[in-house]
Amino acid sequence: MSYFRDNIEKAKGYEPGFQPGGAEVVKLNTNENPYPPSAQVLKAISEISAEQLRRYPDPMGNMFREAAGALNGVEPDWILCCNGGDDLLRMAFSAFCDRRRPVAYPVPTYSLYPVLANIQNCRAIEVAFDEEFNLPARLARVRAALTIVCNPNAPSGTVVAAEELASLASEISGVLLIDEAYVDFAERNCTELVKQFENVIILRSLSKGYSLAGLRFGYAIAQPGLISGLVKVKDSYNVDAIAIAAATAAIKDREYFKGNIEKIKAERSRLAEQLKGLGFELPKSWSNFVFAGHPSTGSTSSPQASKAKDIYDKLVQRNIYVRYWEQTGIENKLRITVGTRQQNDTLLAALKEII
Amino acid sequence: MSYFRDNIEKAKGYEPGFQPGGAEVVKLNTNENPYPPSAQVLKAISEISAEQLRRYPDPMGNMFREAAGALNGVEPDWILCCNGGDDLLRMAFSAFCDRRRPVAYPVPTYSLYPVLANIQNCRAIEVAFDEEFNLPARLARVRAALTIVCNPNAPSGTVVAAEELASLASEISGVLLIDEAYVDFAERNCTELVKQFENVIILRSLSKGYSLAGLRFGYAIAQPGLISGLVKVKDSYNVDAIAIAAATAAIKDREYFKGNIEKIKAERSRLAEQLKGLGFELPKSWSNFVFAGHPSTGSTSSPQASKAKDIYDKLVQRNIYVRYWEQTGIENKLRITVGTRQQNDTLLAALKEII
Repeated sequence: MSYFRDNIEKAKGYEPGFQPGGAEVVKLNTNENPYPPSAQVLKAISEISAEQLRRYPDPMGNMFREAAGALNGVEPDWILCCNGGDDLLRMAFSAFCDRRRPVAYPVPTYSLYPVLANIQNCRAIEVAFDEEFNLPARLARVRAALTIVCNPNAPSGTVVAAEELASLASEISGVLLIDEAYVDFAERNCTELVKQFENVIILRSLSKGYSLAGLRFGYAIAQPGLISGLVKVKDSYNVDAIAIAAATAAIKDREYFKGNIEKIKAERSRLAEQLKGLGFELPKSWSNFVFAGHPSTGSTSSPQASKAKDIYDKLVQRNIYVRYWEQTGIENKLRITVGTRQQNDTLLAALKEII
Repeated sequence: MSYFRDNIEKAKGYEPGFQPGGAEVVKLNTNENPYPPSAQVLKAISEISAEQLRRYPDPMGNMFREAAGALNGVEPDWILCCNGGDDLLRMAFSAFCDRRRPVAYPVPTYSLYPVLANIQNCRAIEVAFDEEFNLPARLARVRAALTIVCNPNAPSGTVVAAEELASLASEISGVLLIDEAYVDFAERNCTELVKQFENVIILRSLSKGYSLAGLRFGYAIAQPGLISGLVKVKDSYNVDAIAIAAATAAIKDREYFKGNIEKIKAERSRLAEQLKGLGFELPKSWSNFVFAGHPSTGSTSSPQASKAKDIYDKLVQRNIYVRYWEQTGIENKLRITVGTRQQNDTLLAALKEII
């Protein structure tokens, strides 16, 4: 007999990307930013006082809310601080979903969504993207309490236009959560949609664009009605005093941020071109990774499908880590984080040898 | 129409203790430690590198698990890091409770438990303590999937003997979570019970004993079977890289910790004696607060019950904050955090004037 609920007992749990150690490793598997965070972040951390640690933090992180509100052109009460974007996803499942209130999302996408659906014991309606990763029209008709669109999508790196998401928001009766964890690397975001629609929540993360995966900080943008409901399900003090100060410093340093983003975009173009030169096929990426399949790695249903796994294994032998999933539909693809110029060159040289 | 689940829509949400600003304030309302955290904590924070921030943290916080395992005489896989003790409570509700799997706990106790029960939409079986805060025998018979005993209890500050909790653990078929957030101020803890019982989870917090309320760090001690099930419901990266380093430094500095605890215990005795001298009645406290009622504040059902509120209001006028709840059964009591000698003297002088 188990002490756990059945759904938890049976769950496999989320598998975070492998975190290899060692300085020799070229780590392109978990979409970390290859550049360090702003010096202002380290300064803010060095200025943390014993008194800030001793006392409870501001439960709402209002210092960050003000900065994020100003950045996004909304009032601070449209912002909710989260212990990483995953914290907001968990809150959304807890607030909107249960056995009679399903979640829906296009697939393939961020592999945490079905894990959270199982924890909340709600039905997950997975609607397949087409080959070009266009938003599936059926998504508007499945009557989900919560619809999630990861945009730019992981692992494809593709985007859906804001106009299409606006249509989706107006068609559904539930909540549309647009997971913009990777939006810093795209040309447009959907901030305007929260102003038009009371049922839209935007998720942002500081892990990627701001090089702060180690800090765990994300935030929601939504109208105050949704924000105050989400507050009811958040941990009382979900973000700590250091994280509030560091995250605020990060989003205020616009110049450093923009410089890093431009460098990654330029490397993304170069990496994509070189991969194409090696015979890889990849959709245009608007994120800090590319999703690459090689014709020789076989089509979805081919017996050669494990060739991507083969390339993956041979990269690991060379201390180069990318992401590979043994999952129908994407088992012939590799998701490769855009690294520094040097990291990308090391990867490309290895791929030249392998293929 | 609401976008939220009914239970969330109707929820009031948890009300964190008021956080007054200003240096003039005597803040004895949220059980913070009046002394700063160990200098080793600030040192660990100052040594955080850009690289630690850029990369995802260790999802399990193994550095902390090793230190906490050594401290408690268990293997590291008996430890689970949490974003504050509240994170573990939420995980426990998510892992063990649902509509057919109720939670049970003696009352009055930590006011977050019913809030979490409502979020998880599970029945909360509240079993009243007697006047001396003895463990109610009925708790073993209500067939809860999760039984929580806050020990030392908040807001009473009282303890239940480990032997009684051992009996409870052996009698119930579900999980017993012993919330030891305040145990650093008691003479005994229940670590031995996790070695004897596969259904016991101990919750620890660094907020009180280690003066780190601003950091959000707590941990679970339990047998690996329970820990690995809880991992399935935890956020993938629930504790950040800075918190892992700072918390590890904190629990390793035993000497500083012990000195602080002794100072607080000594002040607790003095404060209790002085309050008794002013006519207050209070159970012996094993925590960093006292739970004080004054005969002149009336008995539970008396029309004078609001006298405690009166004292509370008059303290606020003097910039002194203690905790008061307008809640049947405890509406004639004040929960007062043990402060520094000077803070306690300021409080006592004010109470002398008021009464």
